Amino acid sequence: MLIVMNMNAVPADIERVVEKARAAGLKATPIPGSQRTAIAITGNLGMVEPARFEALPGVLEVIQVSHPYKLVSREFKAEDTRVRVGDVEFGGSSLVVIAGPCAVESYEQTLSVAKKVQASGARILRGGAYKPRSSPYSFQGLELEGLEILARVREETGMPVVTEAIGTDVIDAVAEFSDMVQIGARNMQNYPLLRRAGKCGRPILLKRSFSASLTELLLAAEYILDQGNDQVVLCERGIRTFVDHNRATLDFSIIPAVEKISHLPLIVDPSHAAGDPAKVGPLARAAIAAGADGLMVEVHEQPAEALSDGRQALRPEEFDRLMSEVRRLAPVVGRSSEVLARS
Amino acid sequence: MLIVMNMNAVPADIERVVEKARAAGLKATPIPGSQRTAIAITGNLGMVEPARFEALPGVLEVIQVSHPYKLVSREFKAEDTRVRVGDVEFGGSSLVVIAGPCAVESYEQTLSVAKKVQASGARILRGGAYKPRSSPYSFQGLELEGLEILARVREETGMPVVTEAIGTDVIDAVAEFSDMVQIGARNMQNYPLLRRAGKCGRPILLKRSFSASLTELLLAAEYILDQGNDQVVLCERGIRTFVDHNRATLDFSIIPAVEKISHLPLIVDPSHAAGDPAKVGPLARAAIAAGADGLMVEVHEQPAEALSDGRQALRPEEFDRLMSEVRRLAPVVGRSSEVLARS
Amino acid sequence: MLIVMNMNAVPADIERVVEKARAAGLKATPIPGSQRTAIAITGNLGMVEPARFEALPGVLEVIQVSHPYKLVSREFKAEDTRVRVGDVEFGGSSLVVIAGPCAVESYEQTLSVAKKVQASGARILRGGAYKPRSSPYSFQGLELEGLEILARVREETGMPVVTEAIGTDVIDAVAEFSDMVQIGARNMQNYPLLRRAGKCGRPILLKRSFSASLTELLLAAEYILDQGNDQVVLCERGIRTFVDHNRATLDFSIIPAVEKISHLPLIVDPSHAAGDPAKVGPLARAAIAAGADGLMVEVHEQPAEALSDGRQALRPEEFDRLMSEVRRLAPVVGRSSEVLARS
Amino acid sequence: MLIVMNMNAVPADIERVVEKARAAGLKATPIPGSQRTAIAITGNLGMVEPARFEALPGVLEVIQVSHPYKLVSREFKAEDTRVRVGDVEFGGSSLVVIAGPCAVESYEQTLSVAKKVQASGARILRGGAYKPRSSPYSFQGLELEGLEILARVREETGMPVVTEAIGTDVIDAVAEFSDMVQIGARNMQNYPLLRRAGKCGRPILLKRSFSASLTELLLAAEYILDQGNDQVVLCERGIRTFVDHNRATLDFSIIPAVEKISHLPLIVDPSHAAGDPAKVGPLARAAIAAGADGLMVEVHEQPAEALSDGRQALRPEEFDRLMSEVRRLAPVVGRSSEVLARS
Repeated sequence: MLIVMNMNAVPADIERVVEKARAAGLKATPIPGSQRTAIAITGNLGMVEPARFEALPGVLEVIQVSHPYKLVSREFKAEDTRVRVGDVEFGGSSLVVIAGPCAVESYEQTLSVAKKVQASGARILRGGAYKPRSSPYSFQGLELEGLEILARVREETGMPVVTEAIGTDVIDAVAEFSDMVQIGARNMQNYPLLRRAGKCGRPILLKRSFSASLTELLLAAEYILDQGNDQVVLCERGIRTFVDHNRATLDFSIIPAVEKISHLPLIVDPSHAAGDPAKVGPLARAAIAAGADGLMVEVHEQPAEALSDGRQALRPEEFDRLMSEVRRLAPVVGRSSEVLARS
Repeated sequence: MLIVMNMNAVPADIERVVEKARAAGLKATPIPGSQRTAIAITGNLGMVEPARFEALPGVLEVIQVSHPYKLVSREFKAEDTRVRVGDVEFGGSSLVVIAGPCAVESYEQTLSVAKKVQASGARILRGGAYKPRSSPYSFQGLELEGLEILARVREETGMPVVTEAIGTDVIDAVAEFSDMVQIGARNMQNYPLLRRAGKCGRPILLKRSFSASLTELLLAAEYILDQGNDQVVLCERGIRTFVDHNRATLDFSIIPAVEKISHLPLIVDPSHAAGDPAKVGPLARAAIAAGADGLMVEVHEQPAEALSDGRQALRPEEFDRLMSEVRRLAPVVGRSSEVLARS
Repeated sequence: MLIVMNMNAVPADIERVVEKARAAGLKATPIPGSQRTAIAITGNLGMVEPARFEALPGVLEVIQVSHPYKLVSREFKAEDTRVRVGDVEFGGSSLVVIAGPCAVESYEQTLSVAKKVQASGARILRGGAYKPRSSPYSFQGLELEGLEILARVREETGMPVVTEAIGTDVIDAVAEFSDMVQIGARNMQNYPLLRRAGKCGRPILLKRSFSASLTELLLAAEYILDQGNDQVVLCERGIRTFVDHNRATLDFSIIPAVEKISHLPLIVDPSHAAGDPAKVGPLARAAIAAGADGLMVEVHEQPAEALSDGRQALRPEEFDRLMSEVRRLAPVVGRSSEVLARS
Repeated sequence: MLIVMNMNAVPADIERVVEKARAAGLKATPIPGSQRTAIAITGNLGMVEPARFEALPGVLEVIQVSHPYKLVSREFKAEDTRVRVGDVEFGGSSLVVIAGPCAVESYEQTLSVAKKVQASGARILRGGAYKPRSSPYSFQGLELEGLEILARVREETGMPVVTEAIGTDVIDAVAEFSDMVQIGARNMQNYPLLRRAGKCGRPILLKRSFSASLTELLLAAEYILDQGNDQVVLCERGIRTFVDHNRATLDFSIIPAVEKISHLPLIVDPSHAAGDPAKVGPLARAAIAAGADGLMVEVHEQPAEALSDGRQALRPEEFDRLMSEVRRLAPVVGRSSEVLARS
């Protein structure tokens, strides 16, 4: 921690800060500058509460230097973490694409879409059984029946499935029926749920909340790793900004930022942010070009009839076109597209 | 819903939209303008998925007209809702101030602060037993022990208490020990928790999330009312913006906005947004002047030693000064300050 | 400047940073911590480019400590600056209210509104002669004729006038005809205009741009002071956020923030941010309660017929009601309302 | 315009709105719905002020349908506009890359960088002669001397140059010495400058301001087209958000959004938003993949010694690597990279 003193601070002000630090078992080193003095506080193992200092006379501001996360950081573990879901691996040289409908509506619908996205090169099936909806009057998902449908479709197609756990009440069921458990953006700071995710025995897909800073996203992942589960894939899905021509603004700068400070893989979900199928392709391509480890894309055979959020779903043929673009982009960013081959 | 056609849309484009609407059991009324045609879609009871129309040829944009909420709206219920907590009432002519420590740290600490804020005119005690913390390494609250302390302090002082339920696992315990259950900003869209709040038998203090629009806040409340509980107090606690001189930016325009479209009371929590005791007073006064129904303020006897978020806590004597300002502001905005009298 | 090293940085990394600093004539002090080393860089008079260090091996991040402004800061000048416009003074114990139409439309309209707002207690007349409008097809102001009208109304009423200079081409004319020159939000970083404002011989009303940080606002003022003009009143008029129930979100936390670090007075313009007359009163009262030095409010006798932005204008009788509230609020925040007395 | 009535509006309320519209020469068509009535207002040629209606009894809200821009819209002109700068064309099948130093520092520096970026495939040289700097104490550019250097380097290399005009005082000089005039983000709503840009006889590079909506950006361009200059290239350079791991957040969704509603070309400047050379490459690739018509990239031979904003500049060899990636991305998005060939 660095304590920046006012230009007009007197020696007694500096002495007071130093004393306060020592009393708390910390080391204080004053650094006189040409205009003002700063005081470095060291010796702490965790974060120090700035309130201890910021109210003292002569203190201009207190700057945090320590980072509050540990297990998720590259300083702690230098090599990239690989996250395995079935025979697919996130964070390695291959790109991974997750696709499927926003919500599981029926066995037939889910199976039909699954076969199509699989043929186009998607390797994991998505589909919501429990849907977090802004309005209590919107379709909330088929719940347990949805989970059973996903399991049957996996049986039929061999695709691992990822689906969202919207609360601690349902995470065990979700973990039982699926291969990867999604924590949605609205639950990114639902700490009891994060702790349960850390003990559920499945890899986790953790979505960034609409207003999360990079530090908050990493701390949410830290909750999961802290429970012993390091199989976490981060997912950028757009942040809330003043912009009114999209539903959320994808923050692509988080891709190199995460790569620098964390060993966890990161994918991008362009569908929800786009809110419009015409924008999904451009944003999906941008994600790959920016270095994402993969994509999660909504696909529906009749978007206009979808029970949930049909607004942004791609049709299977649009998704197929996107996949061939992704395969062509992969080598430009040093990625293999083998795992995405059309089948 | 209003469908705005492209200037160059041909009659067949318009006919296609009209047919599509009729096929869905809706009524479509084309409105030719001097530059373009718009088509009004009526006859729907709930929201209509815009995706049904937005991909049709010649459609420029689709504008939602219906509002997705119902029970929380003033159109549905014109008179202000009064929310009773013990012998205190939110939403009436009297202002209500909730005060207390960020976290319950011990019986002695809580009792001592409670007595002081009560003497200054606070009528409800706040104090976190379960703390949602960004970092897994921060103090997470005394949990059940914290609830028991709150109950003992209520016994001793006669003040009703409000405390946060951070998940469905603990909401029953929170409801049992407290007089009002808080749903925190991070859980504003935790729908299983909102549903449980609707059936927990206690009035609810619902905090706006960092990135919630007015509609999303009202829909979160709608989840609670939809379960039969109309005793909901909304709480503005700041939104996330680019500003770096506060922790969150309080949006005071939501006070008249909520008053216009909803019958629910709304209070303001200036402490977390301020992140600095010197800003709490100005923001608290502003909230009252803007027409809020009350305040929630953090008070701690030794802010610098607080186990949680001491950064913004007022000292009891600072809180006392704020309360006398609030009492002087009340009549200017047509409020009684009787309930806030020093005791 | 503080250079934070990676946990795994080796002594040679630290040495390299120290050398680089010394080569640039700066002093480098390594501060070993329990987890990592930080290096304090001192001896600089201005800002140091972080790029010099941030690319060196082992460097985790570079934290700026110096503040880039000087003349506007309280460290440089501790006492509040008073800004005089005619016989009115901003920044003293009295609140000051500026009021008038968004745009000067005619002599009769301007005079009529001026007399009414003056009677209600406004002391300075506002009115746009040059209007910065988003669309080239909107009314752009009466320009020179508008300035002449303002001068005639001042003659008639004795009220000093403030009006906007939208460019370097017109600032001399604006300064000649008015008593205070406004720099609008869209021009807050129009540096040639700021420099001219610093030499125009008039006090300046400098509006914060929609996306300006506190530092950027103060630096814009610094441009003016640097040219020898310290008669600058800052004006908060709302920032751009995701919120869709207002036109801009007023950031009241900037009031105590500016007060702490700058000696310049600050007023609030609630009209444009509100975009709705029903929100102007609550936000104006909030501004006074939060400690602003005054207000700028749009008033129009027939808002619905206004040539520019009638949307948020108060009617004279609404303004009169607001003024009586402001007079009652003043003493609660330690202000005199004498200057605002009805006349 | 659509006027949405309150559920409880009575027939007299509706009649009042209809009358008000007719009195203003507009046509009003009430559309009774199952829950409420809406009233379509047509017959207007420009925008109608919502204030005329929004204060009437029974009115819930007023929704604008008309778009305020005209010349820039695809409805007005369906085919893509090509903007020619020397022998280079924006908006056609070829991508265009502009590169060079943030600021012109000397003839030697500029020439040396120009030759290198040209060899890597850049076709237009950038370099600031007039620099808009947040602080009055930062380097403000070589001004006229900088323009002369740019002209000499063009002579030497054959590359057309683009440089910024920071005010109406200097735009004639900038237009005389350069091939394309840049209007910077801070001046996007400097209307006198936009008008002069419309008459300066040069193609314009118009940067989106930090807080501009899509409509505001298009209206800024409309100012230029309205003066007879349709040679405008839009430039996304990042918006201000709460994110603290970049300097601005690039909004890639604006690429397909502009393509849908405007015929103007759009390029992306990733350098300023990144604020870090390690992020420039990923963001530049993303821009191309998302469909941008080109890039503008800062390149400096010794970023750490740059007089202005060295923080994000690429070194020539890093830029060369980026260019080979761009050439490989081009065909994936249906673009030719011929014009970008290494020379």
